Amino acid sequence: MKPLGPIPAGYDTVDGELAIGGRTASELVAEAGGTPLFVYSRKHLDDRMAELRESLPHRLAIHYAVKANPWQPVLQHMAGLVDGFDIASGGELAMVAEAGIDPTLVSFAGPGKRDPELEAAIAAGVTLNCESENEARRALAIGNRFSATPRLAVRVNPDFELRGSGMKMGGGAKPFGLDAERVAPLAKEIIASGAEWRGLHIFTGSQALDAEAIAETQGNVLDLADRLTREIGAGPLPKLNMGGGLGIPYFAGDQALNLRLVGERLAERFSRLPDTLSDTQLCIELGRYLVGEAGVYLCTVIDRKVSHGETYIITDGGLHHQLAASGNFGTVVRRNYPVAIASRFAAEPAEEVNVVGCLCTPLDRLADKAFLPRADVNDLVAVFCAGAYGASASPAMFLGQGPARELLV
Amino acid sequence: MKPLGPIPAGYDTVDGELAIGGRTASELVAEAGGTPLFVYSRKHLDDRMAELRESLPHRLAIHYAVKANPWQPVLQHMAGLVDGFDIASGGELAMVAEAGIDPTLVSFAGPGKRDPELEAAIAAGVTLNCESENEARRALAIGNRFSATPRLAVRVNPDFELRGSGMKMGGGAKPFGLDAERVAPLAKEIIASGAEWRGLHIFTGSQALDAEAIAETQGNVLDLADRLTREIGAGPLPKLNMGGGLGIPYFAGDQALNLRLVGERLAERFSRLPDTLSDTQLCIELGRYLVGEAGVYLCTVIDRKVSHGETYIITDGGLHHQLAASGNFGTVVRRNYPVAIASRFAAEPAEEVNVVGCLCTPLDRLADKAFLPRADVNDLVAVFCAGAYGASASPAMFLGQGPARELLV
Repeated sequence: MKPLGPIPAGYDTVDGELAIGGRTASELVAEAGGTPLFVYSRKHLDDRMAELRESLPHRLAIHYAVKANPWQPVLQHMAGLVDGFDIASGGELAMVAEAGIDPTLVSFAGPGKRDPELEAAIAAGVTLNCESENEARRALAIGNRFSATPRLAVRVNPDFELRGSGMKMGGGAKPFGLDAERVAPLAKEIIASGAEWRGLHIFTGSQALDAEAIAETQGNVLDLADRLTREIGAGPLPKLNMGGGLGIPYFAGDQALNLRLVGERLAERFSRLPDTLSDTQLCIELGRYLVGEAGVYLCTVIDRKVSHGETYIITDGGLHHQLAASGNFGTVVRRNYPVAIASRFAAEPAEEVNVVGCLCTPLDRLADKAFLPRADVNDLVAVFCAGAYGASASPAMFLGQGPARELLV
Repeated sequence: MKPLGPIPAGYDTVDGELAIGGRTASELVAEAGGTPLFVYSRKHLDDRMAELRESLPHRLAIHYAVKANPWQPVLQHMAGLVDGFDIASGGELAMVAEAGIDPTLVSFAGPGKRDPELEAAIAAGVTLNCESENEARRALAIGNRFSATPRLAVRVNPDFELRGSGMKMGGGAKPFGLDAERVAPLAKEIIASGAEWRGLHIFTGSQALDAEAIAETQGNVLDLADRLTREIGAGPLPKLNMGGGLGIPYFAGDQALNLRLVGERLAERFSRLPDTLSDTQLCIELGRYLVGEAGVYLCTVIDRKVSHGETYIITDGGLHHQLAASGNFGTVVRRNYPVAIASRFAAEPAEEVNVVGCLCTPLDRLADKAFLPRADVNDLVAVFCAGAYGASASPAMFLGQGPARELLV
């Protein structure tokens, strides 16, 4: 038996089934026209933002990292909640434009920005988090060519990492941003060029569950920003993107982040900011933490079979929509996400099964040796924590399958 | 320094650049309109098939596993070379239909076939490799409903594995096919129903480089097919799909498969087939072995930077097209694929670099600590072994990037 991850709070049982936003899984599937189906819950999105507003200092702006879930209805809903957006490509720039989002609220990070992407961003008034001297100079040249004033920040590769983060973006050689000692010369060059100086972007890691580690890193980010601002010597820093890092529990044993503690530590730091940062626009960028727990992936049981004494529940879903849950994206050892039999959500676990997808590959696993209620053909399986890095981060066309349906309720 | 995988044979240098089908990488990029670009070589496809025809016994039919590369021009080219096709979904059925492929040459395997997929396959005359009793009965019911005669084979979960295979599909509990002891009862049921009995599908694993291991497994497959045919007791087996297993070298130290030895061993076995198999249509299904080395992924250097003493070559490609090369698909330890500076293919290696994609994630790596000729902005990078499980097996929409260009030359 292998444990399942913890099911996020806020999911109910109605008529014995999993309910999302008060409606049963089978109703939602009927409305969407079938499975596989991602369901995203407005209430979860709203509640998470409310928790953040309540716990974090008010002066800290909250940006949404579009990469976590770029589906238009989700993006449009987030537009009513957050203070800004972070994008990672020209494709995402088109998505925020389609959602009617004010481009001056958008910043663009990514180590391989092409000239057409820089041109579109500069024309729209998006802030570019410059990842290298080359890139900043290309942006300045484009600004000259178009008689536009680029809005430029510098991304810093910090010397420290976020302890316990699932994905480290600092603390050594990295393709992201500039090493700290090269930041001030480039910032001075940008300021001297007449571009709009937008400050610093310092991203240390993501998916951390330890509030003290996050608070310590945020303190280090503020210290580094202060030091660099003094090195730059052009007065207070206009803006500081402090990165993200707030994680959600996926696996058995994961404890939810103590958000209140993060907020308290941050408030304490904010109460004694140096002059360089006292008027700075401060923001964090969150993706997974905002939308991850708001999404559920539903698929239908197609077959149920026994092989060498093990029971397999075969679904019409799979890694083509749930690459990370299958254990094939950024994980060394596969562990079970939270998975349930959605159509028998109130039933007691009764058997050990392997839940797999429909793909003809042994990589296509959704839950290994999981203790679940008995599921038969046409039952619905739910994979939780499917709101971030699901549909858009999976190979939808693999084996000719195509994308899943999506629904915002 | 970490070694790079071996560059497949048949790639030349013209004007100092990598040439594919006699044309330079930069010419091909210009023709396609830019990068990222997959280039597939007709000559490689043809040469590989010629080797197979020369090395393997003539009575062994060669099927193409569409999942390896379903791009229409490749599929259409393969249609002129191979004897049959294996598909894994209704989506792939539509692809072979679009390519004008005779559906009676097609068989369909996959553990989670939905009713609409079974209906389309039965209506077209595709052979179904039944993965369970349930599935076979659904197919028979659909046949009755449509007054069609389903063409049914049974997929066997063999008791043995293919030693050294990169992906094991036999030798224990599996979601694929029926355990051996349940095959004969289902085959009898199919035959008694009046469906067209199409024999057995036995797939043990893929991506093996050891000819003796493959030959041993093929012998085991023939023995198992003989035993099951006798258990079924309905005369000689009409058809046996012996699976695949033939691998290609991806990593340093990998030795190319000794295909001639596989052919010799197989010919020896074929010379003494039991009566149950003496008139059987025998086939193998190959995907990666047919198309993997025929494909090259080309991307453009966008930036070149140094962080903490390490040099990064940042390209406009990445894991959104090359998930497996990035180390995020079915591998525990990331190793380097064969990677080269395509625009300086004749140059001597001069520096140790990390080649990364354009995505804003540390997962997006194309080559770690690789010893390569010096590359600057606008140089072209080539990732080899990109013909199979590249474009269609990667999350193209991740970070808003979208699909790569593709070209058959």
